Amino acid sequence: MTNPSSAADLSSLPVRLSARSRIESFIVMDVMRAAAAREAAGHRVIHMEVGQPGTPAPRLAREAVARALDVDPLGYTLALGHPALRQGIADLYGDWYGLSLSADRVVVTTGSSGAFLLAFLSLFDPGDRVALPSPGYPCYRQILSALGCQPVVMEAGPATRWMPDCTAIERLMAAGPLAGVLVASPNNPTGTMFSRDSLAALAGYCRDRGLAFVSDEIYHGLTYGPAAETALAVSDRAIVINSFSKYFSMTGWRVGWMVVPEAMVRSVERLAQNLFIAAPAVSQAAALGALRAKDELEQNRAVYAANRRLLLDGLPAAGLDDIVPADGAFYLYCDVSRFTGDSLSFASTMLEETGIAATPGLDFDAARGNRYLRFSYAGQTADMAEAVARLQTWKRLAR
Amino acid sequence: MTNPSSAADLSSLPVRLSARSRIESFIVMDVMRAAAAREAAGHRVIHMEVGQPGTPAPRLAREAVARALDVDPLGYTLALGHPALRQGIADLYGDWYGLSLSADRVVVTTGSSGAFLLAFLSLFDPGDRVALPSPGYPCYRQILSALGCQPVVMEAGPATRWMPDCTAIERLMAAGPLAGVLVASPNNPTGTMFSRDSLAALAGYCRDRGLAFVSDEIYHGLTYGPAAETALAVSDRAIVINSFSKYFSMTGWRVGWMVVPEAMVRSVERLAQNLFIAAPAVSQAAALGALRAKDELEQNRAVYAANRRLLLDGLPAAGLDDIVPADGAFYLYCDVSRFTGDSLSFASTMLEETGIAATPGLDFDAARGNRYLRFSYAGQTADMAEAVARLQTWKRLAR
Repeated sequence: MTNPSSAADLSSLPVRLSARSRIESFIVMDVMRAAAAREAAGHRVIHMEVGQPGTPAPRLAREAVARALDVDPLGYTLALGHPALRQGIADLYGDWYGLSLSADRVVVTTGSSGAFLLAFLSLFDPGDRVALPSPGYPCYRQILSALGCQPVVMEAGPATRWMPDCTAIERLMAAGPLAGVLVASPNNPTGTMFSRDSLAALAGYCRDRGLAFVSDEIYHGLTYGPAAETALAVSDRAIVINSFSKYFSMTGWRVGWMVVPEAMVRSVERLAQNLFIAAPAVSQAAALGALRAKDELEQNRAVYAANRRLLLDGLPAAGLDDIVPADGAFYLYCDVSRFTGDSLSFASTMLEETGIAATPGLDFDAARGNRYLRFSYAGQTADMAEAVARLQTWKRLAR
Repeated sequence: MTNPSSAADLSSLPVRLSARSRIESFIVMDVMRAAAAREAAGHRVIHMEVGQPGTPAPRLAREAVARALDVDPLGYTLALGHPALRQGIADLYGDWYGLSLSADRVVVTTGSSGAFLLAFLSLFDPGDRVALPSPGYPCYRQILSALGCQPVVMEAGPATRWMPDCTAIERLMAAGPLAGVLVASPNNPTGTMFSRDSLAALAGYCRDRGLAFVSDEIYHGLTYGPAAETALAVSDRAIVINSFSKYFSMTGWRVGWMVVPEAMVRSVERLAQNLFIAAPAVSQAAALGALRAKDELEQNRAVYAANRRLLLDGLPAAGLDDIVPADGAFYLYCDVSRFTGDSLSFASTMLEETGIAATPGLDFDAARGNRYLRFSYAGQTADMAEAVARLQTWKRLAR
């Protein structure tokens, strides 16, 4: 029998942690924490570090929640999601892309994060090599690593507008078998996009070689020229991941979706039942409202467009003139190698000296990220203007 | 270049799914679906299959959300959770157990489901053997399997009030090394509980052998005699998992928590950043309100107590007189082997012939579950009374 009073001594014993838990930190979250600490100490911070809209969920979403609070017990939904929301998402593919999509293929998830977990577990076994874009969203590789898979990167640069192509996949396959390929368009952190032809080429290449093809479309709707193409328009085998976080301005609600081939639905459902039970019911109610909020969401997009213009005009004057040519999302990825070889400490100095929080490129590109900073322009236009003004007088950017 | 018009032909090709996605279905979710289909066809169903309160989130939680909708953009919170909620949860350990707990050790999660994913990934590597209670909550083993671990069961029966003991762990260790032990008290589906001495013995046994000790305390607060003991009272190395789903009546909100040793916090934070970003902000706002809703929650508990009494009195008269001696949660686990050797088809027939949905024991105990049904009494008292009346006239229970 253990003596309970001896329990206190045990707290100093180390806990044996798994090898796979030794993934890297998601650096942007650490920057958020440093920024929050700075604010708590009474300083003003301009938040350009985090990929979230400054706007709340659209009014129609909030009204849907207020109604649901009165009439709906908001218990578990079915694992694949509320039927009306699945249908509403299917209908969106008609509105956005002119595609007819069965709601049976739509899976409501706990944010795109939940969709990645479900997709990766459904498609990949431990040891499987999976190709990811670089630069790219860091959680792809961290989630894959935690699940025992081996992320490998398709490095892209100016020659392909910073987007992966078939040659990059070919290079990876020369080194060993691949299980799948993940792409994002618009990509994070670059904001660059595929043409329909490039996307079709990638999807076809993967189909011909039996590779899973996962398309992260979370920034669809947030484009400032031609609209983004969905992988579903070029392949019925693609696994498409999206979310209410970005265009629909609902980051903190943690509700997203996945469109999967019919043959994959049951597998995803079993995993969702066991790993999540269901996505948050309250967020699903909000999402159903958000689907009707196009007017407000297009106003938000107009703000991002103005912010983007303001930064593209103002940053070069501050010395940040090497910016990846972004088409969408709400990021600008800037080459800062003229000022630093260590973007992490540069971001930290910038936060301290200008009050501007941005994300070091290391999160997105282990090999070249020390030369880059990502600025998010999802915030208020006035903040963007102030950021430009502060950067224009920041001595570390002086030539 | 792929010809997009050929995409349609591909939908018939099979998708290559991972081996690990071949986990079993969470049968209760399938029963829910069958029950929903029956309701959609116009029949009345008494829901005793699912472990969720019939009550909505408490009024103070819903009011907190209504307020937050007006003033809070509800963006991402920090990965470990909103600081006020972490503190509120830490304070709960003072109120409930007289323990002083630092909020630094509290991690807010996306339901207990999210906590299991984080705990298992932090503690266990692929191939690790982890001991689980049997009968027990089926998702433990399904999540572990999906993560590449090997669940093994501590079979318990009447001799230990259906709870695992050190002898059961010892038996498993004789067959090979264990990485950890998970227990739940009150247990699902049995509702049975550990004494403080039994819990301390298990925690001490695990400590002495370097095994991780995970205590699922999701049914704390829902007891009808002595209160449940927390593993934190007997061990500072225990990983404790809990949720706002059950006592706090917030299943669909997907917000729970974990208390971990200090040495584990950073590992859990990194995983949470990458796999979840954060728990739903709206649900965290609701949870903060729910922490002040003791009066309403105690009224809910009084309803469960009445339901429990009603079933314990009424089911034996219907022929269901072999019930595991439950102390807590809102389940009764009944031996139906007198009537069937196949609890799955028995449950299906019962749904069809009486309109009562219950969960076959197979979900909880692969070896003996065909002899058991789990009835949840988390619903309305009137429904429980009607269920008893229907069962008392159901011909298949006649002696």
